[in-house]
Amino acid sequence: MIRALAAVSLMALTSGCIAAAVVPIAASSSAIVKSRMAEKRAAHQGAAPQTLPAPSAGEGLTNLVPTLKERQVGAEAPPAPGIPATLPARGVVPEGMQYLYGSGEASAGSIQAYRALQRYLADIVTYGKKGAARQVVLSDGASLNAPQFEPCGPKPLAVVLDIDETAVLNLGYEADAARRGESYDAARWSRWEQSGADKVVAVPGAKMALDAARAAGITVIFNSNRLAENAAATEAALAHAGLGPAKHGTTLWLKGDDGGGSGKDDRRWAIASGYCVIALVGDQLGDFSDLFNEARLAPSTRRALAGSPALAALWGNGWFMLPNPVYGTALKGSADEIFPHDMRWTDPGPAATAPAAGTAVQPK
Amino acid sequence: MIRALAAVSLMALTSGCIAAAVVPIAASSSAIVKSRMAEKRAAHQGAAPQTLPAPSAGEGLTNLVPTLKERQVGAEAPPAPGIPATLPARGVVPEGMQYLYGSGEASAGSIQAYRALQRYLADIVTYGKKGAARQVVLSDGASLNAPQFEPCGPKPLAVVLDIDETAVLNLGYEADAARRGESYDAARWSRWEQSGADKVVAVPGAKMALDAARAAGITVIFNSNRLAENAAATEAALAHAGLGPAKHGTTLWLKGDDGGGSGKDDRRWAIASGYCVIALVGDQLGDFSDLFNEARLAPSTRRALAGSPALAALWGNGWFMLPNPVYGTALKGSADEIFPHDMRWTDPGPAATAPAAGTAVQPK
Repeated sequence: MIRALAAVSLMALTSGCIAAAVVPIAASSSAIVKSRMAEKRAAHQGAAPQTLPAPSAGEGLTNLVPTLKERQVGAEAPPAPGIPATLPARGVVPEGMQYLYGSGEASAGSIQAYRALQRYLADIVTYGKKGAARQVVLSDGASLNAPQFEPCGPKPLAVVLDIDETAVLNLGYEADAARRGESYDAARWSRWEQSGADKVVAVPGAKMALDAARAAGITVIFNSNRLAENAAATEAALAHAGLGPAKHGTTLWLKGDDGGGSGKDDRRWAIASGYCVIALVGDQLGDFSDLFNEARLAPSTRRALAGSPALAALWGNGWFMLPNPVYGTALKGSADEIFPHDMRWTDPGPAATAPAAGTAVQPK
Repeated sequence: MIRALAAVSLMALTSGCIAAAVVPIAASSSAIVKSRMAEKRAAHQGAAPQTLPAPSAGEGLTNLVPTLKERQVGAEAPPAPGIPATLPARGVVPEGMQYLYGSGEASAGSIQAYRALQRYLADIVTYGKKGAARQVVLSDGASLNAPQFEPCGPKPLAVVLDIDETAVLNLGYEADAARRGESYDAARWSRWEQSGADKVVAVPGAKMALDAARAAGITVIFNSNRLAENAAATEAALAHAGLGPAKHGTTLWLKGDDGGGSGKDDRRWAIASGYCVIALVGDQLGDFSDLFNEARLAPSTRRALAGSPALAALWGNGWFMLPNPVYGTALKGSADEIFPHDMRWTDPGPAATAPAAGTAVQPK
C-alpha cells in the first residue's frame, strides 16, 4: 500500500511540470560570482543581515528559479573538493571533521545511504522496472521547480557518483588541513590528488553498494571536480579504497574533460548520452544539478527547493545524498537566512516561567 | 538477487553472535563520567594526544566491549538534547547549524532517511514479514559485538523515535543559542521545552513517514530525554510540527519515566514489552543502545562498532540515523582519535611534486 503510493509519487514527479506557488527570491550579496567557497563564505558573513522570506520546505517555488538554459549568467561555481568552509584553528579538529571522519553517527548515516542505493538499484534490476527506467539526470532546459527527465530506451544502466566525501573520505588531506589550520590552496589540493592515493578510505557502505551494482550489471561511473591532469592518481585512489576500477574517459569524468568548468551538468549529459543513469550519488546539491549552485539562490530558497515535492520525491529514490558538514555549499547563511523569523524564541528567563509571575508562556 | 542477499545478511545478523577479532581498547581521558557533553569535550581537547589503535570500519571488535549487564559501572550519560558541543561565538551561526538547519543538503539527507524508514515499514507490512518480525531493540544482556534480538510474537507493531533533531528541529532554541553564544544551561533548555512548542518544525520527511506508518497500523512512539515534568509542552511541540498525536505514558516516554536516568534502554525495554518495535529512529547512537555511550569507548572504537558487520546490517534496515553535526556524542575526539596514523599525509610542497626533483610521491 505504501509502496504503491511511493510509485505513484515518482510517476507524478517524472511526468512533467509541477504547479508552483510564487515565492519571491531576493538577490543577495551571495550573488557575486566567486570560485572559492572559503572566500565566498567570509564575504557572506561580513554582509548585512538579510531578511529574506523563508518559504517552508514542501512549498512550490517561483519560476524565477532559473532553467538550465539560463544558468550561464550569474552562475556560481561549485566548490572544488576538500575546501574547508572556514579557517580552522591550528591543530584543532573542527566539529564537522569530528562528525564526518570520527563518529559512529556519520558512519551509520553513510551506510544507511548506500544501503538505500543498493536496494533502489536491486528493485530496478529485480522487478523488471528496467524497461521503464528514466534518466535521473535533469534534462537540458528543465528547471528545479519543473524537473524533467528523459526516457532511457535501450541504454545500459549506470550509477554516477561524485568522489570526494561521497565515495572516499580524504583523511590524509583533512588531517593535514586540521594540523596546519590554513585556508584552502588549490595547488596543495592538486598535490593531494597526485600523492595521496593511499591516504583515503571508502565512505562506509560505498564498497558494499558498488560491488552489488557491478554484480548486477550496472556500470559505476565517477563524475568529479578533481583535475583531469591527475586522472591516473585518482584512478589509484579509487582502487586503493576498493571502489575501482575507474578509467578516465569511460568510467571516470573529471574537471577539464569538458572544457574546464566546475559545473557537472555537461559531463552528466555526456554520460547520459550513452547510459541510462538510474542513480546519482553526491554530498553537494551540485552533484545532482548545477542549478542548485545559482548565485541568486539564498540558503533558505535552496533548502526549500531541495525539499519541494518535485525534488523531495527523488531523495533516496534516484538521488542519494551523503553527509558532509566539513566543506561545501551547505555551509553558508547568516542567522537571518538559517532561522525563519516566525521560529525565533527568546528565553523568558527563570521568573517568566514561574507560575506566580503571570507571564509564563504555557505550551498549547 | 541483491535483495535476497540483503535478507540473508539480516538473518545472519539477528541469529546470534558474530565472530569477533580482538582489537585493544585503551582507557582514555574520556572515561571520566560527566553528564554534559560541552564540559566533556572541553576537557577532552585539553588532554594529551592519544595514540589509540584505529580499527577500520567493518572489523570485528573485542569482547572488552561491555554488555548491557555491565554498563552500570563507568557508563557515560548521554547528552541532553540541544547541547552545543562547543561555545559558539556570539551572533555567529556555527557551521553545524548552517548545515543542519539551513542547507538543502541536510534536508535531502533527512528526507532520504525517512523515505528509507517508510519503505522498510511498507516492506514488512506488505510482504507478509510481520509474522516473522523481531524486535530491533537490543536484548537485555546482549553486547554490541554480539547483538541479539527477541522474537516479537503477536505484539502490535511500533516504531520508536527520538524527538530532538530526529523528529523535530529546535529552531527557536538554536537561534537563541547562536545569538547569545552561551554554553548549555539545563534550566534554559527546560524553559525551552515549556515555552517553545510553536518554534519547532518537523525534520524534513518525518511527517511523510509517520503518517504512512500510522496509516499502515503501526504505532508511533517517542522516547526522549526531554523531561517528564514538561510532557504536556512536548506533546504540544510534536502536534505543532504535525507529528502527533503523542500521549505521555503511552506513545511518549520521557526522562523521569523510569527513575530519572538519561539512558534510554530501560524505556526501550518497557516499550518492547508491549510492542514489536520494528524500527528505531535517532540522531545519536544512544537512541539505539546505551552501550554506545560507554565512557571506555574511544571515538575510533565507537565508529568501528557502528560500522561492524553485525551492526552495519541494521542501518537503514531497522535502525535509522538522522544527521546532527550540531551537538551530541558525534562531536568528540582529538586529531589522533579522528585520523588513523596510517592515513596521515603531509603536503610535499611544490618542489617535491615537480618531476625534476626526483622525490615525487607518484600515485600507484
